[in-house]
Amino acid sequence: MDINEIVKQVTATVIEKAGMQNIPAPNPSPAAPRTASAGYDAGYAKYIDHTVLKPDTVKSTLKRFCDEARQYHFAAVCVNPANVPYVVRELKGSGVKCAAVIGFPLGANTSFIKAAEATDAIKNGAEEVDMVINIGALKDREYDVVYNDILAVVSAAHPQALVKVIIETGLLTDEEKVAACVLAKRAGADFVKTCSGFSGGTATVEDIKLMRQVVGAGVGVKASTGVNDRKICDDMIKAGATRMGTSKGIRIVKGEFDIPAEECVNCGACKAKCPTGNVTLTRQSY
Amino acid sequence: MDINEIVKQVTATVIEKAGMQNIPAPNPSPAAPRTASAGYDAGYAKYIDHTVLKPDTVKSTLKRFCDEARQYHFAAVCVNPANVPYVVRELKGSGVKCAAVIGFPLGANTSFIKAAEATDAIKNGAEEVDMVINIGALKDREYDVVYNDILAVVSAAHPQALVKVIIETGLLTDEEKVAACVLAKRAGADFVKTCSGFSGGTATVEDIKLMRQVVGAGVGVKASTGVNDRKICDDMIKAGATRMGTSKGIRIVKGEFDIPAEECVNCGACKAKCPTGNVTLTRQSY
Repeated sequence: MDINEIVKQVTATVIEKAGMQNIPAPNPSPAAPRTASAGYDAGYAKYIDHTVLKPDTVKSTLKRFCDEARQYHFAAVCVNPANVPYVVRELKGSGVKCAAVIGFPLGANTSFIKAAEATDAIKNGAEEVDMVINIGALKDREYDVVYNDILAVVSAAHPQALVKVIIETGLLTDEEKVAACVLAKRAGADFVKTCSGFSGGTATVEDIKLMRQVVGAGVGVKASTGVNDRKICDDMIKAGATRMGTSKGIRIVKGEFDIPAEECVNCGACKAKCPTGNVTLTRQSY
Repeated sequence: MDINEIVKQVTATVIEKAGMQNIPAPNPSPAAPRTASAGYDAGYAKYIDHTVLKPDTVKSTLKRFCDEARQYHFAAVCVNPANVPYVVRELKGSGVKCAAVIGFPLGANTSFIKAAEATDAIKNGAEEVDMVINIGALKDREYDVVYNDILAVVSAAHPQALVKVIIETGLLTDEEKVAACVLAKRAGADFVKTCSGFSGGTATVEDIKLMRQVVGAGVGVKASTGVNDRKICDDMIKAGATRMGTSKGIRIVKGEFDIPAEECVNCGACKAKCPTGNVTLTRQSY
């Protein structure tokens, strides 16, 4: 089926099934960024969520990310909730925001806990929250569950903090990607976002284009996982992305295109060699 | 250094640094299992936490896991918190418990949220909670942070539910594994557990032996990730494990030793072929 037809049909189905026919599309949040039309030449730093989410992250690493974000004027430093208090202190006065991930990376927490986690992170100083949707419920077409889950976090976060909704593109069909974006937009999300970085898949030009097509100009689109150099960043911006989740922001602002030898370049050699065909290829970005 | 010397030295250091010198080791919880001395011949089913934690898990998969757990009399079905209400309903009257993962899989949530998540899961019917420690704090030797984080969940869960503490062995040195087990035991945990399955590493005989050595007979040891057949399960039990986290419980109770072709057998072919040497080998169990 043509992708435009998929967008049209899935949008109508999702709105009906989630019981949203009589709910108007939300007014743009006062906290929502209006970066969709931001100039490409205005610099790369404002696109970068400098991201460090590994579970064994130590204070010295957090400190380095904060120092780098301050030096290069990145949009935010994106961390796990336990690290928010430290990062907020380190970023004080820098103009760089702290973003906290919520229900991360599996998205399979209850809505009650996701909302509580957002409230807690904002209390600790986070100004943006990046939540993962309930992916199982989306696949079961329980659109009301997915919608209310996002809405719970948006209600907890607005107007103090922006909400980015991670739809986890690597696990979804095109139809599911459209449904997730429709639900996120209707629930008042400020951004839709591609990947957590923990469930396979990377940001692709095709997905960013599709997500931008569904949410329109009033909602941000964040490309995350695999945005490792200037070339990829340029491709994502051209496709409609307005924020990048990456640990390679310095390489991007410096205009570096090379991928260091120690990183996966998706060459596929491992997959070709695997006797079971079960190797998962993912560019490691976090 | 000899492993016994490591255990002795790290134990003394951790107890001093966490300010626990004057805190007596906890009395065994009324909820704590006394399975350390359970007979090896008494059957394998009671060892099995039938585990399904993938973020895109749908209802039909949850139903199958519950049906299988009921049929084979497994100890528990281990799921993400959003799936607890459904699983508790499905398991009603079966004698099989529902276990919920907490702060999972990164362990980098605040203690406040981990405790709230445990309370919420237990309210929804979970009788066991499997929490991940704050791994970054452990690596920073902030033992008081790690201890109080575990204690927050234990306090929220006891006496209604058991607490298993995932130390994430794949990310830790031997010294850190000892410290984590000392802190978990002192905080009143019912089990220490090897891996989340999401951060690399698998349960090993060496780690199970070390964990059993540190916690003694009064605390359970759960081997999780990579426990895929009867042979591995036997090895883990002999090393001191009293519970297994696996999706391969049926294969274990049926005494099957073969690994299906579609699964990674750690042959190393992919790693040998990778031009960057950056392929991580992990047996996929979840």
